Amino acid sequence: MNNILEKLTETIEARKLASPESSYVAKLFAKGEDAILKKVGEEACEVILASKSGQREQIVYETADLWFHCMVMLAFHGLSADDVQAELARREGLSGIAEKNGRNEK
Amino acid sequence: MNNILEKLTETIEARKLASPESSYVAKLFAKGEDAILKKVGEEACEVILASKSGQREQIVYETADLWFHCMVMLAFHGLSADDVQAELARREGLSGIAEKNGRNEK
Amino acid sequence: MNNILEKLTETIEARKLASPESSYVAKLFAKGEDAILKKVGEEACEVILASKSGQREQIVYETADLWFHCMVMLAFHGLSADDVQAELARREGLSGIAEKNGRNEK
Amino acid sequence: MNNILEKLTETIEARKLASPESSYVAKLFAKGEDAILKKVGEEACEVILASKSGQREQIVYETADLWFHCMVMLAFHGLSADDVQAELARREGLSGIAEKNGRNEK
Repeated sequence: MNNILEKLTETIEARKLASPESSYVAKLFAKGEDAILKKVGEEACEVILASKSGQREQIVYETADLWFHCMVMLAFHGLSADDVQAELARREGLSGIAEKNGRNEK
Repeated sequence: MNNILEKLTETIEARKLASPESSYVAKLFAKGEDAILKKVGEEACEVILASKSGQREQIVYETADLWFHCMVMLAFHGLSADDVQAELARREGLSGIAEKNGRNEK
Repeated sequence: MNNILEKLTETIEARKLASPESSYVAKLFAKGEDAILKKVGEEACEVILASKSGQREQIVYETADLWFHCMVMLAFHGLSADDVQAELARREGLSGIAEKNGRNEK
Repeated sequence: MNNILEKLTETIEARKLASPESSYVAKLFAKGEDAILKKVGEEACEVILASKSGQREQIVYETADLWFHCMVMLAFHGLSADDVQAELARREGLSGIAEKNGRNEK
């Protein structure tokens, strides 16, 4: 499973330069930032409603939609899921340190 | 970078069983589904506003926040980032097939 | 301007009972609560993006869309804009009292 | 109930010029547009969750919160609930005309 976010990043980057007719992502990039952000907002709502429905497949499906559109937004800014994972790793490291310090304090 | 989502999944799972006072995530789980979903909604808004600000660090920071709270929501339902990545891989596979078929048609 | 929310309430109530083909609102009611709530979420995002655009006509247009879909959601629950205005009046009254008390304290 | 939105508009306008310490609204204005928009986004989520809870008082309360923060956003742009109601009236008029035309066509 580990490389799907990298593979998706490549796919999205390739479509950034493609003609709007060639793919859904190329069309989103052509429409611009606000169109991408509307999708991020919409998909976040769908995640919330899927969670309330308790339907596991729906929850996974909508979260995949949300993360995908976040990746399109990141690509719009020349960023990628790698940057997000680096930030999460940085925090997890800090959190590890905090826990360690917490233990030392006791 | 590849294993941070797995590592985070373990951390979140461990905190699911911890006392609410022990961590931010344990507290969120104790508050329940709606508290988690409010955070998902809030962080989606912050991603939208960060994108409009154009500040790259802010965009990464807020997207990390959004994905993290999605992972807490997934854990609430006994799901994980792995399920989301499997769904994204499934689609990428389909998309690869669609592209191949598209090429064959020409 | 004062009666438009009441007039809209009547229109929405009438369409609640109409066949789904007869109007946009009848179709939304037929689709159910989640379809209505997706529109509330979507329109809230559009309000945020309109505000960031600074385009006054767009801001008014999207806020009208958001309030309208809130009114459909209220009607779904047998509530109306009147209930919301009563709550706002209650708070304004409380706030008046708080201000008065504030003055008395000085 | 008719005049509460006008009364609230006056209250919000008065607080626009007040010192940030004097009230919640004055503080929001001092924090700026993004802080106001975060509240609009947050309250929209709360409306969605209140609707799913089915608790009528909660639904009214959260919709009042959402509309109130929309009014703060409107005031930030020199607009008011009056502009939104004028837009809703314009649409209701159009919709009346559309219905009339529809009848004529038959």
